[in-house]
Amino acid sequence: MNGWHQPAPEGWIAKVEEALLEDIGPGDLSAGSLPPDSTVDWYIEAQGAGVLCGVEIAAYTLQNADVLVCDGSDVAPKTRVLQGQGLAHQVLQRERAALNFLMHLSGVASLTKKFVDQIAGFGAMIVDTRKTTPGLRGLEKYAVRCGGGRNHRLGLFDGVMVKDNHIRAAGSINKAVAKVRGQLGHMTKIEVECENLEQVREAVDAGVDVVMLDNMELSRMSAIVNEFGGRTVLEASGGVTLDSVRDIAATGVDVVSVGALTHSAPALPFHLELQ
Amino acid sequence: MNGWHQPAPEGWIAKVEEALLEDIGPGDLSAGSLPPDSTVDWYIEAQGAGVLCGVEIAAYTLQNADVLVCDGSDVAPKTRVLQGQGLAHQVLQRERAALNFLMHLSGVASLTKKFVDQIAGFGAMIVDTRKTTPGLRGLEKYAVRCGGGRNHRLGLFDGVMVKDNHIRAAGSINKAVAKVRGQLGHMTKIEVECENLEQVREAVDAGVDVVMLDNMELSRMSAIVNEFGGRTVLEASGGVTLDSVRDIAATGVDVVSVGALTHSAPALPFHLELQ
Amino acid sequence: MNGWHQPAPEGWIAKVEEALLEDIGPGDLSAGSLPPDSTVDWYIEAQGAGVLCGVEIAAYTLQNADVLVCDGSDVAPKTRVLQGQGLAHQVLQRERAALNFLMHLSGVASLTKKFVDQIAGFGAMIVDTRKTTPGLRGLEKYAVRCGGGRNHRLGLFDGVMVKDNHIRAAGSINKAVAKVRGQLGHMTKIEVECENLEQVREAVDAGVDVVMLDNMELSRMSAIVNEFGGRTVLEASGGVTLDSVRDIAATGVDVVSVGALTHSAPALPFHLELQ
Amino acid sequence: MNGWHQPAPEGWIAKVEEALLEDIGPGDLSAGSLPPDSTVDWYIEAQGAGVLCGVEIAAYTLQNADVLVCDGSDVAPKTRVLQGQGLAHQVLQRERAALNFLMHLSGVASLTKKFVDQIAGFGAMIVDTRKTTPGLRGLEKYAVRCGGGRNHRLGLFDGVMVKDNHIRAAGSINKAVAKVRGQLGHMTKIEVECENLEQVREAVDAGVDVVMLDNMELSRMSAIVNEFGGRTVLEASGGVTLDSVRDIAATGVDVVSVGALTHSAPALPFHLELQ
Amino acid sequence: MNGWHQPAPEGWIAKVEEALLEDIGPGDLSAGSLPPDSTVDWYIEAQGAGVLCGVEIAAYTLQNADVLVCDGSDVAPKTRVLQGQGLAHQVLQRERAALNFLMHLSGVASLTKKFVDQIAGFGAMIVDTRKTTPGLRGLEKYAVRCGGGRNHRLGLFDGVMVKDNHIRAAGSINKAVAKVRGQLGHMTKIEVECENLEQVREAVDAGVDVVMLDNMELSRMSAIVNEFGGRTVLEASGGVTLDSVRDIAATGVDVVSVGALTHSAPALPFHLELQ
Amino acid sequence: MNGWHQPAPEGWIAKVEEALLEDIGPGDLSAGSLPPDSTVDWYIEAQGAGVLCGVEIAAYTLQNADVLVCDGSDVAPKTRVLQGQGLAHQVLQRERAALNFLMHLSGVASLTKKFVDQIAGFGAMIVDTRKTTPGLRGLEKYAVRCGGGRNHRLGLFDGVMVKDNHIRAAGSINKAVAKVRGQLGHMTKIEVECENLEQVREAVDAGVDVVMLDNMELSRMSAIVNEFGGRTVLEASGGVTLDSVRDIAATGVDVVSVGALTHSAPALPFHLELQ
Repeated sequence: MNGWHQPAPEGWIAKVEEALLEDIGPGDLSAGSLPPDSTVDWYIEAQGAGVLCGVEIAAYTLQNADVLVCDGSDVAPKTRVLQGQGLAHQVLQRERAALNFLMHLSGVASLTKKFVDQIAGFGAMIVDTRKTTPGLRGLEKYAVRCGGGRNHRLGLFDGVMVKDNHIRAAGSINKAVAKVRGQLGHMTKIEVECENLEQVREAVDAGVDVVMLDNMELSRMSAIVNEFGGRTVLEASGGVTLDSVRDIAATGVDVVSVGALTHSAPALPFHLELQ
Repeated sequence: MNGWHQPAPEGWIAKVEEALLEDIGPGDLSAGSLPPDSTVDWYIEAQGAGVLCGVEIAAYTLQNADVLVCDGSDVAPKTRVLQGQGLAHQVLQRERAALNFLMHLSGVASLTKKFVDQIAGFGAMIVDTRKTTPGLRGLEKYAVRCGGGRNHRLGLFDGVMVKDNHIRAAGSINKAVAKVRGQLGHMTKIEVECENLEQVREAVDAGVDVVMLDNMELSRMSAIVNEFGGRTVLEASGGVTLDSVRDIAATGVDVVSVGALTHSAPALPFHLELQ
Repeated sequence: MNGWHQPAPEGWIAKVEEALLEDIGPGDLSAGSLPPDSTVDWYIEAQGAGVLCGVEIAAYTLQNADVLVCDGSDVAPKTRVLQGQGLAHQVLQRERAALNFLMHLSGVASLTKKFVDQIAGFGAMIVDTRKTTPGLRGLEKYAVRCGGGRNHRLGLFDGVMVKDNHIRAAGSINKAVAKVRGQLGHMTKIEVECENLEQVREAVDAGVDVVMLDNMELSRMSAIVNEFGGRTVLEASGGVTLDSVRDIAATGVDVVSVGALTHSAPALPFHLELQ
Repeated sequence: MNGWHQPAPEGWIAKVEEALLEDIGPGDLSAGSLPPDSTVDWYIEAQGAGVLCGVEIAAYTLQNADVLVCDGSDVAPKTRVLQGQGLAHQVLQRERAALNFLMHLSGVASLTKKFVDQIAGFGAMIVDTRKTTPGLRGLEKYAVRCGGGRNHRLGLFDGVMVKDNHIRAAGSINKAVAKVRGQLGHMTKIEVECENLEQVREAVDAGVDVVMLDNMELSRMSAIVNEFGGRTVLEASGGVTLDSVRDIAATGVDVVSVGALTHSAPALPFHLELQ
Repeated sequence: MNGWHQPAPEGWIAKVEEALLEDIGPGDLSAGSLPPDSTVDWYIEAQGAGVLCGVEIAAYTLQNADVLVCDGSDVAPKTRVLQGQGLAHQVLQRERAALNFLMHLSGVASLTKKFVDQIAGFGAMIVDTRKTTPGLRGLEKYAVRCGGGRNHRLGLFDGVMVKDNHIRAAGSINKAVAKVRGQLGHMTKIEVECENLEQVREAVDAGVDVVMLDNMELSRMSAIVNEFGGRTVLEASGGVTLDSVRDIAATGVDVVSVGALTHSAPALPFHLELQ
Repeated sequence: MNGWHQPAPEGWIAKVEEALLEDIGPGDLSAGSLPPDSTVDWYIEAQGAGVLCGVEIAAYTLQNADVLVCDGSDVAPKTRVLQGQGLAHQVLQRERAALNFLMHLSGVASLTKKFVDQIAGFGAMIVDTRKTTPGLRGLEKYAVRCGGGRNHRLGLFDGVMVKDNHIRAAGSINKAVAKVRGQLGHMTKIEVECENLEQVREAVDAGVDVVMLDNMELSRMSAIVNEFGGRTVLEASGGVTLDSVRDIAATGVDVVSVGALTHSAPALPFHLELQ
């Protein structure tokens, strides 16, 4: 069974090797108590409810494993997601690295899902930010997709965000946008971070693809949606929580970006058991 | 000012380079709107209360920066921790990577501090586990130290943990311990994971350095402390929360290990401002 | 002097180290004929006419160097672009690596400039493709920008291109586009590769951002521009040469993509001289 | 079938992984339009005439592939060189990286072959230089061998080249050669770069293995061949083109070195087709 | 057959790849004399007496190989330890890298065994130090275990050693120990390097886990064993040789550490033969 | 002072970083006992007689250091080779890595020097082999040069060695040499490994550059020198020791290759002292 939730990131195998190296290092001392040739049957099951992410990575890490549930699926306590067979000392050595990926990525996917569920019925999409864990951006953005969210830009290279400092340096939104547009190819979108109605108007007039409403009150956002909705994509941003997200979506914005998806998601617990 | 909270981990510069690469990649498109030679004065301040960790890493990432507050210090909203000067486009390019380290590591340190504070007055120490974010173990264990916690073993290589599967395979705690002790040098400690009183007795009789009380009830732990306290180190483990930790410490155990310190710490918010 | 043509790619220093390692390896045998402490004044000058690219990389490689001309500038035979001073054996050891970057990247920039100049007066932009030299994509895309071109998507991750195989598998352009749109964030554009008028119509009706006209005759492209110009971005693609590019631009397409910019650009010659 | 043209370079797998990473990165967005389990039969065919190089690398990159034609073979438009079967999304993801290696390396081999063919009947060998693409030296030198050329030294470490600056610093050719010879093992050859007859005489008298005739006129080279031929190896060098190479070889020199083989070879086009 | 002597180090495959790269580099020139499809049967045999280490690494390096004797086993001249079959040019290319690992690691294991045998009958264990070959610490510490020795701490991170400079800086052994103990977790041991009886007394009173007797005379060590034996672990250290080790062990110390195990072990010779 | 003995290898800085990482890892626990801002003056001195190698590497590792004696110089017990100043905890953390390089490389240089001295007065040169420590070939070959030896080929890529297996596969020495020569450039030498007089004759007749006399008796070598001396380079090889090397050189061979230089050199002791 293919356990990926497409499209999957490239280069994660090096991350697995890094994780194994930092855990096993010069050798698993406890393995010395095990007979070198004893084999075990094992499985991994969820210990909480949420969305699975990372099952192919765990399968690769543990070797000789069968994926039972795909990334992006809902799991509940006792849902078995992976099973396999192997030498006891190898399974016990690789268990922790496999679980650490699974718990972290499923944590991100599960929190994303909660935000997505919270705004069910509204047209907005939940997107992530660049506030990711160092070294894990590609995997965390994949976890967001598994949880039903969408990805904001991946980095500084695949989309333009004109912020207050850029505006100040260029003289105006119009000038900043014009300058950057003069260098861009035809596949790149431009977003402008706006703090008030006047800036939104300037940005829309400049023809930008997306306008970010930065830390605005609900009533302000509603007014902007009424005036500019459909003429550009409107993104609400700034300290969004599970408590506040529904009211924000209700304003009619197109996109709500949430940093917490990747910087503050608690792990979803899983454990490995022998049969 | 030296902003490290000693001992500091080696090799983190490669992590910074990796973080910059995943954020900047083929180029910061938005920088095209900035004059290439404009300089800015900037500072980073906390947006929440907690314990600082990662300030030297942020200083290195942002270049030409002065550390104002050391790792391990308490911060409150508006505490300035780092300031500097640089080319506008370079500062804006490197801002996110610096903040991502600072927010994540300070999150770990701050959560650790809450656990430590929670058990003030009791003799127990709060320690971490191997449930760390892939690729960041050394830094997260450092963050735990910054928060006033201590480190459990770093990996499988620097301490022995005899678990149920090892015991089953070897035949008994005694046999498992004897077998592994026959291979160890004189600098390595042995811990045995115990699920009941009988196992604790066996482990203590086998002369192990540490006994882990795995997911035991409070009364059970108290009884074990009464009987075996002082003859070995007693570690409580399993689903410890900020709500439960004080009662656990009150049983008199020597150590409480908490996986959440590293797998579920929410970020402590910081932002970079221009002056 | 800042010799970069913004935005500059990240991570190129590792490429310089790799180049030095493959050239010097276990040691520069010829250096044994030089007195270890003799210093030299050197400069690098162009030996042909074109557009400079890579001067900051060459400066870093050769150490202690002053940039005289910025990336993106026109150079002619004998234009000095970099000068410095150093130990004779170090300069001679690092000369070849520095020149190899400069010659290759300036070759890409210079060929790009020729294409750009060829279509002067028309509204089209010249863009590159993913047909880049393995390991050098970021730098070559930077060189295209230095030559006045723009960048098509950087890779498979920052833009969607729906090709014939995708269409066939999904059943129709409409279905393929709908399926992929259901997974994308708000910052990503969709392009569809079309081989005939009917496909163009379908793609435009599906509301895609860009339509690629794949290997079409000039008259066909003109007709499509007449019918669909302004409703989507039209990109001409397929075997474009310096001879054919002007006629293609004259059809009124918005974008012309040219694989040769990065896969077949001859080097622009430079050499290092001692004073 | 073994598609290598021996001896093959080591370490190229890391180059493939790097190429895949720079192309796929956090995920192939377009793959989202494909059914995850559809398989395809594919083949790669040449779109121009030349010499094949890199077919084993392409086979490895695309996985589950059969090599139909070996490196070093002549190909013509429509020559099928590789075929295989795989999941549609995996084949489309890896196609570009595979083709980029094949097109670049076959480009180098094909240009080499043209130079070799041009001097058919003369005794000279065509050799490459150190003017290679950063990061690809080993592979490009392999491509030169596939095209019927030979390799000059691989880098600064496997052969000595005494240049004008070395001579000036040492005082004379004789002194420079003596100094360097006093440090070399018995497996390393010495070449001296000469600009006139007098220098050639000095170099031959010093007993060097190879004399480079740097940018000399044809008549000068003929005279030198007459006087010194057979007493040392004579290498012609400097701006050699397809137009000039035959006359140079006709002078009777033993070796003609050509920088363009590796720094200015246009790609040989290939494409991947589904059956 | 599993040829590892557990616990085995992680990450050695990267070392094999590095070794192959430094030996083969851009290609095995001599392979050009071999028919590309000839296969050979080969074996590796010892050419001296000692303890085997590295046989799994050699098996991986040579591919398609059967392990005949496990790491940690005694070998004598002509003992066959590994055999296999492969393409002639691949076997000859990989032979040297495989043998270099086998000869070096077996050299370390064999020297360790000599030290261990020398003190047979005494209770002391032979341990290694941090005086290891750069880049090979994990593998060399594994080789020490294969030879019957034990491992001292792996690095600065998994055990505390308080040396004279630490003591001087802190003011006294007691203060230095107290300071460092206040930062340690419950799994880490503390050793103090002592030069005289008074320091030993201070260290024992401070309750440290291990006391190192640094370069002391035999009579001094005997006296210390008499007074402090059983109250702490006593380690003799400093210039220990095969000639002196038995007398040192006879003093009754618990541990003898020997730097020569890893910094001065002569290779144990092996060669690869074709059948 | 420049402490390198030219030509120096490239890429060693990565080796230093690897060594620091394996020693310090997640942090130097003992540093916790030191005041974070105390500085020390330190020096490194030899503790035995030999030849210095690696002093620039040690200087880089320890930072802020002055080289007092150059690589390739003789040292005696108490010769100071390096001194500097730094933060106490940084110096103590980096001390071991610096000394490990210095001790190992100086060990190789010192053993080389002994072999070179042993054959003083004869014309032969002492050369190394490919029997080097994995990962350290470039540095060890540099150490051989520091000890007055010369380098045999660096790897399989920079010289041809036709061995018995190559000869058998090709049919004869003549055929093997002809085949390989048909692929080589003009800068590469060919050596043939010979076991008897007949093979030597064949090899000389084939015009090879070097003939290896493999494990031959002294009288046999003398006879070969008499017959073939001056017509090719003659290299003695096979189990050469300090005891046997002088007699071998006395036969008149041009080169003696010694594997022990790099696979069995005992470390030359150095230590770091505070002032």
